[in-house]
Amino acid sequence: MGNIVNSYRDFCEQPKNSNIRLSFPAVCFVWQIAMIILFGVFVRYNPESDAHWPEYRRMKNFTDLENDFYFRYPSFQDVHVMIFVGFGFLMTFLKRYSFGAVGFNFLIAAFGIQWALLMQGWFHSLDYNDGKIKIGVENLINADFCVAGCLIAYGAVLGKVSPVQLLVLTLFGVTLFAVEEFIIISVLHAKDAGGSMVIHAFGGYYGLSISWVLYRPNLGKSKHMNGSVYHSDVFAMIGTLFLWMFWPSFNSAICNHGDGQHRAAINTYLSLASTVLTTYAISSLWEKTGKLDMVHIQNSTLAGGVAVGTAAEFMLMPYGSLIVGFFCGLISTLGYIYFTPFLEKHLKIQDTCGIHNLHALPGALGGVVGAITAAAASTTVYGEEGFRGIFDFNRVAPVQGGYQAAALCVAIVFGIGGGIFVGCILKLPIWGDVADENCFDDEFYWEVRTCQISKYNCNLSN
Amino acid sequence: MGNIVNSYRDFCEQPKNSNIRLSFPAVCFVWQIAMIILFGVFVRYNPESDAHWPEYRRMKNFTDLENDFYFRYPSFQDVHVMIFVGFGFLMTFLKRYSFGAVGFNFLIAAFGIQWALLMQGWFHSLDYNDGKIKIGVENLINADFCVAGCLIAYGAVLGKVSPVQLLVLTLFGVTLFAVEEFIIISVLHAKDAGGSMVIHAFGGYYGLSISWVLYRPNLGKSKHMNGSVYHSDVFAMIGTLFLWMFWPSFNSAICNHGDGQHRAAINTYLSLASTVLTTYAISSLWEKTGKLDMVHIQNSTLAGGVAVGTAAEFMLMPYGSLIVGFFCGLISTLGYIYFTPFLEKHLKIQDTCGIHNLHALPGALGGVVGAITAAAASTTVYGEEGFRGIFDFNRVAPVQGGYQAAALCVAIVFGIGGGIFVGCILKLPIWGDVADENCFDDEFYWEVRTCQISKYNCNLSN
Amino acid sequence: MGNIVNSYRDFCEQPKNSNIRLSFPAVCFVWQIAMIILFGVFVRYNPESDAHWPEYRRMKNFTDLENDFYFRYPSFQDVHVMIFVGFGFLMTFLKRYSFGAVGFNFLIAAFGIQWALLMQGWFHSLDYNDGKIKIGVENLINADFCVAGCLIAYGAVLGKVSPVQLLVLTLFGVTLFAVEEFIIISVLHAKDAGGSMVIHAFGGYYGLSISWVLYRPNLGKSKHMNGSVYHSDVFAMIGTLFLWMFWPSFNSAICNHGDGQHRAAINTYLSLASTVLTTYAISSLWEKTGKLDMVHIQNSTLAGGVAVGTAAEFMLMPYGSLIVGFFCGLISTLGYIYFTPFLEKHLKIQDTCGIHNLHALPGALGGVVGAITAAAASTTVYGEEGFRGIFDFNRVAPVQGGYQAAALCVAIVFGIGGGIFVGCILKLPIWGDVADENCFDDEFYWEVRTCQISKYNCNLSN
Repeated sequence: MGNIVNSYRDFCEQPKNSNIRLSFPAVCFVWQIAMIILFGVFVRYNPESDAHWPEYRRMKNFTDLENDFYFRYPSFQDVHVMIFVGFGFLMTFLKRYSFGAVGFNFLIAAFGIQWALLMQGWFHSLDYNDGKIKIGVENLINADFCVAGCLIAYGAVLGKVSPVQLLVLTLFGVTLFAVEEFIIISVLHAKDAGGSMVIHAFGGYYGLSISWVLYRPNLGKSKHMNGSVYHSDVFAMIGTLFLWMFWPSFNSAICNHGDGQHRAAINTYLSLASTVLTTYAISSLWEKTGKLDMVHIQNSTLAGGVAVGTAAEFMLMPYGSLIVGFFCGLISTLGYIYFTPFLEKHLKIQDTCGIHNLHALPGALGGVVGAITAAAASTTVYGEEGFRGIFDFNRVAPVQGGYQAAALCVAIVFGIGGGIFVGCILKLPIWGDVADENCFDDEFYWEVRTCQISKYNCNLSN
Repeated sequence: MGNIVNSYRDFCEQPKNSNIRLSFPAVCFVWQIAMIILFGVFVRYNPESDAHWPEYRRMKNFTDLENDFYFRYPSFQDVHVMIFVGFGFLMTFLKRYSFGAVGFNFLIAAFGIQWALLMQGWFHSLDYNDGKIKIGVENLINADFCVAGCLIAYGAVLGKVSPVQLLVLTLFGVTLFAVEEFIIISVLHAKDAGGSMVIHAFGGYYGLSISWVLYRPNLGKSKHMNGSVYHSDVFAMIGTLFLWMFWPSFNSAICNHGDGQHRAAINTYLSLASTVLTTYAISSLWEKTGKLDMVHIQNSTLAGGVAVGTAAEFMLMPYGSLIVGFFCGLISTLGYIYFTPFLEKHLKIQDTCGIHNLHALPGALGGVVGAITAAAASTTVYGEEGFRGIFDFNRVAPVQGGYQAAALCVAIVFGIGGGIFVGCILKLPIWGDVADENCFDDEFYWEVRTCQISKYNCNLSN
Repeated sequence: MGNIVNSYRDFCEQPKNSNIRLSFPAVCFVWQIAMIILFGVFVRYNPESDAHWPEYRRMKNFTDLENDFYFRYPSFQDVHVMIFVGFGFLMTFLKRYSFGAVGFNFLIAAFGIQWALLMQGWFHSLDYNDGKIKIGVENLINADFCVAGCLIAYGAVLGKVSPVQLLVLTLFGVTLFAVEEFIIISVLHAKDAGGSMVIHAFGGYYGLSISWVLYRPNLGKSKHMNGSVYHSDVFAMIGTLFLWMFWPSFNSAICNHGDGQHRAAINTYLSLASTVLTTYAISSLWEKTGKLDMVHIQNSTLAGGVAVGTAAEFMLMPYGSLIVGFFCGLISTLGYIYFTPFLEKHLKIQDTCGIHNLHALPGALGGVVGAITAAAASTTVYGEEGFRGIFDFNRVAPVQGGYQAAALCVAIVFGIGGGIFVGCILKLPIWGDVADENCFDDEFYWEVRTCQISKYNCNLSN
């Protein structure tokens, strides 16, 4: 056993080569072709997106408007923006890794949603009559959600991994996500509308564990590249704001029709507003002349949306949402100030985007908030019918609270366990990641136009 | 009396100190805690977002789809984007104040919407049975609208005030807004779907008056910072376009279900299209070789949306919308060319973003357009039922026109009066604003990474 | 005849003068005033946006929600974002033509939608009772679609034409589009939900033909400006992503209510996801160390959305969509690598943005896919009612396939023929275009702030 570990270690310590000309296209092609075959075998339209809808509709006595499309499509598009522009631009803050941030985010999201449709479809949308997965707009939203877990993980390893590694991270991440989600939603019957546990806690710990396994002791050699410049911070704010604005859609997208979606949007709106104020306050308070730090503003202002996810559909009450946001902004910002350096120094976890403070910790908090509010739920507050509508399983409130807590544990265990497993795979020296001194630099995976010294230079530099 | 004025003046002329390490976090915390307490006492869900919805729905014989959420949520999200990305990025045009533009916009909007939910709630959504404010998606939209007034005012003082001043400006701005809105909508029963008067005229004059009181005679010392660079102008176009594109949602968001929302969107779409052409034409015509000026393109193209706000829901007719847009683009662009320098030189009003030309003047024009079209309304054009649906108060058209004109006066009086009052408060030397020579520079409230001379510099400067 | 051609040539070869101070404002004013007059004579609200809606609604036994506004408005806003932010920012990739890209895009779209409302209105929305065009939200979407054709054409001539030329290009482009669309949709009864043929093939060939006529043999003199810099590539990604994300809305916006819109969104989502992977793969494979090229990522990732347009509403099946996307990403990326240089060298077509690979070719492919899938359609797959709902004309499937193919030919013929005709008009030396050595430079049509050498320079250049 010791021998195996040692030879694995030796194998992993071979010099790195960032040429991915063969491996990367090969992986892309093979996986895309696999997707086509699997979709051919398994995936069909559900009754609401199938051309037989007019007959189905008449049978069910629906109007066209009661097609789920009209309940969910606006939220879906907002979630889509969060995944591609939100996550993508949030990570452009590094001075010279914007192509990688937005470009690889694009790549892994586009691959991940296909695989997620299959994985989640097998668990949740399989039609046992014909063995086909039947998809509709809710599946698209769930696929976006699933991929969000992997994009969170990308935040931890941003600038340190190759696109091939990212595709592997996504393949396993989506798979783990689907299993974990199935256990939490369908086995434990826990509620997690906005995915505090299923998406954020899982994704956060998944990424942190991978980063722990891939620890680079000499990362300091790239220190000059691991920071922002003025314009890159403004680009990152595009990501921050689109995430912040559309988070109410994220948390409400798959809630119950009617009051469920409505209430989830309100709770998230309020929690996020509250987070902003504490983030600004703490950011200013901890700097000696009271200046604000863009890192906090870009990230911690979003923590309230994460933490209110599980309980978004519950009767959290408007002030409850504000309280959740208040403490999350505070904890998340302090996390950036104290915890990220601590993680790097003492736990050997290099967390480029600080996903611990934005996703892992607020996600776990969100799970706790959800467990407490579920345990405290009563038919007085919810009404008989409302209670049954939200907690669709036949349990008393405290028991539901217990299952919510169990669900959080499942998410964290899957995140950490899966992350360590996948990290060990990614540590193999075959994936084309860059050497320690070349991290955080687009030059190794992207054609970057060289500088042109000319009469225009002066203007350009402005 | 003279003594008091003199000692106020002396007090105000103390040297400035931009250290806000204590005052800023203190204000953020105190206000956020106050919000939590007030929300705890006052704010609850309305029947459409409460878990008792299934019972309420059955009682009212509604389907889930008739929850107001589905009528208004897409518009709400568009408005949300306008507030946070639209206003935020529109102000990033300054070469070195993008953090302040987008970051402080974010801060005051996040605070303002909470306070607005309370202030507007007390006036409009109070349930007299239990003394609670009952909120739903329409309240969220109105809170966003309310905050827009303060963000407009921020445009006038951009780069010259501290974040603490901005929070004070917002606290009073929202309060004044809610009172003014109550008078206009609920006392005068004037119509103002897109808020030409309530939002734009009020917000514009509020900001201009504050700027007048805070006049900085030596602002010329920061002249080198009061301008754009190439990339900052492109960032600003993000703001312009999101405002422009989503303005139909802004003007239609709280209109009557059905034709009201539909017509408001069409009118706004057309008015904005027309504005673009006259803006480009005037911008080119006034420059000696016909070149276009980004300042005009970024701002005046939006004037048509402002000016069509009051009348958006009316039967303005498609050509009527085009005419409004035509003249607004013309007037607004000429405003930038002639009126902004005039304001600064002769009236001592330093208007960083030219909100006079984008909000104050077009807003006032919009009020006039609204008054005229309301006065000319007839049941022939609207139909019996349509007429009663839009002008929900029992008046003949010319009288309604008169009330519309009165409403405009209320908005302007509140803007100017409130602005002078708040300006005097903000003039006190306790708020941490910067000295005249440090205006328009992010360095005083934000951590700005220092320059790194390195082999990467060449690339970076491209 | 030879004489006429020769004197036309001589006339065209006069030295160029980019002063547009008279011509540009004149065109803007005259055309906008013409729009106002024509709208005054012709355009009114349709029953769903008219104030008589309550009566109409009762007559039709509709609820407010069945107003078409609620079926289409969210998609409309997404399409609007694609037109103004999507197309606009996609073209900002040039190092020094971002103002022109986003600014002229804005201008021609704003003009074009007005003219499109009229042209398309005469063909499709004319009320023969009173001779008026009755508009509603679907007309707004169609106007945006129509303008997309011209914006595609702009991509081919980006940086080489004056704004006056662009307005002329748009006037004729919209006119040709409306006629072509009428033939395809109303005469041939072909289906083209997402406009692969009507919009993309037409717009692509229209632009390429114009560029062919306007061939600049000495364009090499501007070579140093015909490329990107780091930040401009990031700006362009904003355009790419908003196009990519909202393409499902584009293809579904005017589909049948219910399953039609639903299925079109799913097909487009899948096709686009698949395209991304092949684009990345080919981009990496064709470079010697496997690096990715931003040009491909920005453009070819969108080809799948173009190619699935015609068949979006059909029962293409999820795997069918993936297959379409797969080949389109492949072909489009290879197009950038091989075909664009070939076009320039051998066919004298200078295609700045590579619209051949993003629009013309994928659009034509989309037409072929549509013809094949229509020819293969059966009532087994669609159901009786579904079949009649989609192919609203009474034909057997193979005949419908033939008409689809005929429609593609119409689109291409109109594109090429119209482009050559308009190109000859634009070649006249009266439109203020720049000399060959001044192409791709904002300085000739925009006020560009000059450089300020100062202590801030260092920071700024970061």
